[in-house]
Amino acid sequence: MKKIKVIQFGLGPIGLESLKLAAEQSWLEIVGGVDIDPAKVGRSLADLTGVAALAGARVHPTLEALFAAVGKPDVILHTAGSSAATSFAQMRPALEQGVSVASTCEELIFPALKTPEIARDYDVLCRNSGARIAGTGVNPGFVMDILPICLTGVSREVRSVYVERVVNASTRRQPLQAKIGSGQAPDAFRAKFAAGKAGHAGFQQSVALLAHAMGWKLDEIRESCEPVVATSRVVTKFFDVAPGQSLGIHQKCVGLSGGETKIKLDLQMYLDAPLPHDAIVVKGRPDLNLVLNGGVAGDDATVAALINIVPRLLAAAPGVRLMTELAVPAWCNPAGPAV
Amino acid sequence: MKKIKVIQFGLGPIGLESLKLAAEQSWLEIVGGVDIDPAKVGRSLADLTGVAALAGARVHPTLEALFAAVGKPDVILHTAGSSAATSFAQMRPALEQGVSVASTCEELIFPALKTPEIARDYDVLCRNSGARIAGTGVNPGFVMDILPICLTGVSREVRSVYVERVVNASTRRQPLQAKIGSGQAPDAFRAKFAAGKAGHAGFQQSVALLAHAMGWKLDEIRESCEPVVATSRVVTKFFDVAPGQSLGIHQKCVGLSGGETKIKLDLQMYLDAPLPHDAIVVKGRPDLNLVLNGGVAGDDATVAALINIVPRLLAAAPGVRLMTELAVPAWCNPAGPAV
Repeated sequence: MKKIKVIQFGLGPIGLESLKLAAEQSWLEIVGGVDIDPAKVGRSLADLTGVAALAGARVHPTLEALFAAVGKPDVILHTAGSSAATSFAQMRPALEQGVSVASTCEELIFPALKTPEIARDYDVLCRNSGARIAGTGVNPGFVMDILPICLTGVSREVRSVYVERVVNASTRRQPLQAKIGSGQAPDAFRAKFAAGKAGHAGFQQSVALLAHAMGWKLDEIRESCEPVVATSRVVTKFFDVAPGQSLGIHQKCVGLSGGETKIKLDLQMYLDAPLPHDAIVVKGRPDLNLVLNGGVAGDDATVAALINIVPRLLAAAPGVRLMTELAVPAWCNPAGPAV
Repeated sequence: MKKIKVIQFGLGPIGLESLKLAAEQSWLEIVGGVDIDPAKVGRSLADLTGVAALAGARVHPTLEALFAAVGKPDVILHTAGSSAATSFAQMRPALEQGVSVASTCEELIFPALKTPEIARDYDVLCRNSGARIAGTGVNPGFVMDILPICLTGVSREVRSVYVERVVNASTRRQPLQAKIGSGQAPDAFRAKFAAGKAGHAGFQQSVALLAHAMGWKLDEIRESCEPVVATSRVVTKFFDVAPGQSLGIHQKCVGLSGGETKIKLDLQMYLDAPLPHDAIVVKGRPDLNLVLNGGVAGDDATVAALINIVPRLLAAAPGVRLMTELAVPAWCNPAGPAV
């Protein structure tokens, strides 16, 4: 089997994790990276990741510079932001040349929700060039959308879908603990969430993807987020939270159709959250009640989802693709994936 | 959207349930049925199902007779046996003409396991004619293969997969209670299992599909089945089981590679089994631990899986297809599926 040539776009913590996992795959050939950080441009990927095998691959400041230096890859692993509009624009030079993109961009889980015209334009562009672009991840991208959707594959009838996820943020990396408002004053966090600058990204996209897969036209998607406030001191590796300060978030998102709540997602992500788990309840025929004890750990699993999507993405028809249009997700054996 | 023309091949209990569910779908048009039973041939499907809307569709004795009478359908819903070789042969007249087939045939979950040459021949035939054929269902087809496979979509590493399923057979139809040996002498059941005439069909195919998806070459698949023996009297709607007689089965199937147990499936299906559930344990990175409380009810869900696969099957490339090659399973809204 011919190796799939990949590049890593975005060399933050998730991008570097993605590179390390990609480097373990015998079926992938990493030919370079792209990052705007002048401190990274020109350095070797071995230097940035500690993976000696990547010594020959370097960081370029732009896609154009990378293409000029090493030629076109087959796929770009994109880990550079949450906005679909920005991600599309970043990937334009690649998509125009028929290079496909697997992305952790949260809004790309369902890009038609916030940017329908842009999604349509890029879909046309991709169909013309032969490229595919799709967003993936754990949440959004799996626990609260693809996994419940897959579960309904055995449903005769689905009346509603409920998913809850409880994450113990104490076990997660510093940026995540910061993002959920750890140690902040609850009102300061509320103001940030209201301004769209805090909270879990991609929640509404999960609701939209679920509704799309179930064939439900939603009248409204409602989202809310409240800080979880410490009642006693909580100390993690990164934060020391006093009583009255925020420990994290309790975020909810519902999808309504004809006055009925068809979809309800409930996310609790805070320091020292007890009993972390993911749970899915499908009301229908049959009723389905799924629990993932301990939940799906985020960061490890996010880069796994990104790498695992690659062969499925390349097997799909050109266009802006949804995860529901790709073959069933599955782990890719480093020795070579089944697809 | 143009309706998809379907016919039902096999009009036993599952076939009739399939027809009833198909009749609820606005996106399907049922044009006929096929069954060898002379008592059914010529009758209307309305008569057989009680669904008045099917008054115009009749039972034909063969595919050829049906095609001659009403033309070629787009898809055949096939519920007529467990043997891949037999199912392929039954479907040959359709596949040769480019008509696709969704089947509950257990061996079609992974037809290359028992009949690799036949599967290869039919794959060529389908690629030439433009037809697709795939097996689906709940078990095999979902709980012990597709669902754990989907779960590994967020895995960086998978070392082993364990699935257990406990079914309370008291809640199931008579043929299933009979099939698992209810009320039989344990030794009589053992002899039947050894002769391949009892037990759960498709277990080895689930193991083979899982191994294929994980990229594992198995050296051996080992299957065993023991009767579960009543310690006190158990009475169901269909059986009255005395102490010492069989209540059902405890069947196991393992897949070994290089001396390691990579896959282990464990099925308990017996009268009055307590705490019915499905559970999946993936050892890897991350470890994943899934429980479906109450499990997935079999018969309702089997016909649901069959109908839900139709749009995904038609969107796939021609050939003998595996469920892992189709888009993520999902419920099809009777108003029209998303795919």
